[in-house]
Amino acid sequence: MAKKYRLQEIADFVNGEIIGNPDVEITALNGIESAIANEISFLIDKKHLELLESCEAGACIVPKNTGDCAVPTIEVERPDIAAARIHNMFLQKEYVSSGLHPAAVIGNDCQIPDDVSVGANVTIGNKVTLGNRVTLHAGVVIEDDVNIGDDTILFANVVIAKECIIGKRVILHHGAVVGSDGFGFATDERGNHITKPQVGNVQIDDDVQIGACSCVDRAAFGTTWIKSGARIDNLVQIAHNVVIGENSVIVAQVGIAGSASLGRSVVVGAKTGIKDHVDIGDFVMVAAMSGVHNNQPTGAVIGGAPAFDVKKWGRATAAYSRLPDMVKELRKLRKEVDRLSSIVQVKDETKRDEQ
Amino acid sequence: MAKKYRLQEIADFVNGEIIGNPDVEITALNGIESAIANEISFLIDKKHLELLESCEAGACIVPKNTGDCAVPTIEVERPDIAAARIHNMFLQKEYVSSGLHPAAVIGNDCQIPDDVSVGANVTIGNKVTLGNRVTLHAGVVIEDDVNIGDDTILFANVVIAKECIIGKRVILHHGAVVGSDGFGFATDERGNHITKPQVGNVQIDDDVQIGACSCVDRAAFGTTWIKSGARIDNLVQIAHNVVIGENSVIVAQVGIAGSASLGRSVVVGAKTGIKDHVDIGDFVMVAAMSGVHNNQPTGAVIGGAPAFDVKKWGRATAAYSRLPDMVKELRKLRKEVDRLSSIVQVKDETKRDEQ
Amino acid sequence: MAKKYRLQEIADFVNGEIIGNPDVEITALNGIESAIANEISFLIDKKHLELLESCEAGACIVPKNTGDCAVPTIEVERPDIAAARIHNMFLQKEYVSSGLHPAAVIGNDCQIPDDVSVGANVTIGNKVTLGNRVTLHAGVVIEDDVNIGDDTILFANVVIAKECIIGKRVILHHGAVVGSDGFGFATDERGNHITKPQVGNVQIDDDVQIGACSCVDRAAFGTTWIKSGARIDNLVQIAHNVVIGENSVIVAQVGIAGSASLGRSVVVGAKTGIKDHVDIGDFVMVAAMSGVHNNQPTGAVIGGAPAFDVKKWGRATAAYSRLPDMVKELRKLRKEVDRLSSIVQVKDETKRDEQ
Repeated sequence: MAKKYRLQEIADFVNGEIIGNPDVEITALNGIESAIANEISFLIDKKHLELLESCEAGACIVPKNTGDCAVPTIEVERPDIAAARIHNMFLQKEYVSSGLHPAAVIGNDCQIPDDVSVGANVTIGNKVTLGNRVTLHAGVVIEDDVNIGDDTILFANVVIAKECIIGKRVILHHGAVVGSDGFGFATDERGNHITKPQVGNVQIDDDVQIGACSCVDRAAFGTTWIKSGARIDNLVQIAHNVVIGENSVIVAQVGIAGSASLGRSVVVGAKTGIKDHVDIGDFVMVAAMSGVHNNQPTGAVIGGAPAFDVKKWGRATAAYSRLPDMVKELRKLRKEVDRLSSIVQVKDETKRDEQ
Repeated sequence: MAKKYRLQEIADFVNGEIIGNPDVEITALNGIESAIANEISFLIDKKHLELLESCEAGACIVPKNTGDCAVPTIEVERPDIAAARIHNMFLQKEYVSSGLHPAAVIGNDCQIPDDVSVGANVTIGNKVTLGNRVTLHAGVVIEDDVNIGDDTILFANVVIAKECIIGKRVILHHGAVVGSDGFGFATDERGNHITKPQVGNVQIDDDVQIGACSCVDRAAFGTTWIKSGARIDNLVQIAHNVVIGENSVIVAQVGIAGSASLGRSVVVGAKTGIKDHVDIGDFVMVAAMSGVHNNQPTGAVIGGAPAFDVKKWGRATAAYSRLPDMVKELRKLRKEVDRLSSIVQVKDETKRDEQ
Repeated sequence: MAKKYRLQEIADFVNGEIIGNPDVEITALNGIESAIANEISFLIDKKHLELLESCEAGACIVPKNTGDCAVPTIEVERPDIAAARIHNMFLQKEYVSSGLHPAAVIGNDCQIPDDVSVGANVTIGNKVTLGNRVTLHAGVVIEDDVNIGDDTILFANVVIAKECIIGKRVILHHGAVVGSDGFGFATDERGNHITKPQVGNVQIDDDVQIGACSCVDRAAFGTTWIKSGARIDNLVQIAHNVVIGENSVIVAQVGIAGSASLGRSVVVGAKTGIKDHVDIGDFVMVAAMSGVHNNQPTGAVIGGAPAFDVKKWGRATAAYSRLPDMVKELRKLRKEVDRLSSIVQVKDETKRDEQ
């Protein structure tokens, strides 16, 4: 049965101010073009205010000082955050355990509470500990000696390799791999590679989310560590011994090489590569498709490959498209300077002759 | 039992013209270096005509106006297309259903016709509908409320998340993920990320093919939509609310960010990144490893990061390798201009002194 | 029970020279900051010699001519190789077969020796041959007609498609896909794509390792071939008909397009793309994030996109960040040259007037 809130209750939940009827009843949140009478929508930027004219929502979350609108509104500082909170509030359900599916395979000496949901064709190794309300979807594989915290969700076909530690409220999306071997070997004089055993593990702290088909390699020694609140998108590669700071954001297809460390609230744009052993300070922002070769101080904003100051990089990329013109201009200047030189020299000589 | 066709039948099938014996019997298609007496091969470009000298094929598909060859030929406008059609003709088999494997797990309230093939360790959720002749290979996971059209093939370990809609004759290669959550959150002033629930789905239209370990995220609201005939290679990232037009081609390791839209018959080269909310017109071609930051009109051909006109980009990349020389030339010019300036000035002054 | 060796035995194993007590008993290898009394550690570079001061290891592997240290040492030419060998020696265990898990599904006409380990929810097709001591972890899928050599390990959720051949001592990490269809089609005049059937296979030779979620496509005709000793990292794309030479190293997120061939001991840096049909000679090294468009001779060291000589490329990237300054300097030079031209011309005219 759908939840139902009066607009006033919703406004109170996000500390917003109502303009219009506080008694409208709302049962869901929806996009501004799809929302209907008993739904609330949201408008992030006042410059799209005209969208409200044709909006059929029962109410709308809007930025502060938007003023009277065609529908009742809740004014808040950050409509995106308020909308996310309200949306989660509507969707939140009490956890219902489905227990262990008969087609799941559970190893020995595991500690699995009663209130988990373990799907079909899941494989759990030996000495695995699951927290309360853990959900393992179909096809998940958990190797030996893994520890998974309360309320964590592993979607279908996720793999957690042996000895890894997963925190609470972690979400790993479909096909993600945690704890595969790091890419470590020594190459002898004949070109043969001798594997360096990867005997460390991976630790993923509370509230981390990792995207589909992303890979986090186990440490050579010690721990590859994703700290609490970090958000990692799809198809990302995290190499052995990397450390990702609290609340950092790693967009799709990024690759972070061995032993690199990122501070807290770092944002790494899509497809960027970060070199091994590089240290990235807190709050650093890296543009998409960059290559980071050097340590970065707190708060640096960089782009390019190799990456440097984002403003300088912006100017460089703009100049890049003009490179062919620059080549032409250089050739012209060369000709003119040569001509000037010869004239000046000739005149110089003429003068000397005259004198 | 292998199929067998007379060369004349094959020529008729592709509207080609036979030069040589129309009664040669052919049982298969093979590459030009491996084909044997009862096989037909193909030559795409006349400039490799010498390959036919040593070719042991019983016949060969060649371009129009190739003329007499060492083997009987079928002349056609496009040998690549004719070869593909003939190859498919030889390989086509009547569909044989293997039914539901006893080690497959099927949920409740599903609609599954008799003539499907569902492999071992497949997991199907509740309220799933499969079309006729659907093939789900081992380890596939289908979540609740998914609808899959006739003749679609899902290779091993593919995952379709809840509520997604898959068309007819779709092929999803091993490990592909359709319907994982989009990467959506709002970040508050303390750096905490509040998840924006991703309540949309993915729709994949008829005849689409998606490569191994590629990921298509479900929409935040609404639908991430891959239109009919699109071809997506391996390890591609398609973010939430992206729209890919009919017959578009996305090569390996491309990433397309949220709400970007591509028209029909767009070709995106390998490893390219496309920014969120960018609109790419019909027939646009993007070079490999590009970064597309701006909307592109119909038929644009672009390259680079940020991408611009492909011809200008070609000249810019050529100039790029000469950048160090340009730096040197600039320094030389500076010196010479300074010297000229000083001479001209001196002479100017001398002159004034003289007068 | 842990193994135990005297330092002398260890030194003999790697042909090293002991400085200090040869009778120290060692039971494991560990990192220099974590190693304790009965463990041996290693120091790869003398410039970090101060780390030995606080090191609690019972012994340390060090470079030749390091001399007296705070702990007993084994001096060797290449401490990284010696450490890898010693580490493997300590970790090596006799293979213990776990047999076929009751929740594994095995097809018909397979040849599977008694001493294998086949995990839960594994699916093996028909006519599959496994070597001795093969380990298939949970969720692995092996399609029909696959042949896997002795001592090979497939981690969880790996997929081997039909007819592929896997050598001895191969390691495929979690979620890797071998034998998915190549990305081959011909596009007709109306934009429809006709699939070119991919009827070849993949051959992976002895001692190859492939990372998590990497994909190796089957050949269109013939064989996609990864030769012995090659090391491939995570999320790498290997297209149809590619050949990778012995001992070559492919770092994470690289993409190698169709029919490209790499010689032996090639090193391809992370995220690099290699164009289709390009031939890369033996011992070539490619910097990370490069794009290789042309054939490369033996021993070439290249970088950039398109890639060229790595030294020139280094200078070009350095110049790149100065592009905006170059643009400014060009404008200044233009002004000065124009001014000089006008002065010289004016004087020329003045002169003519004077004469």
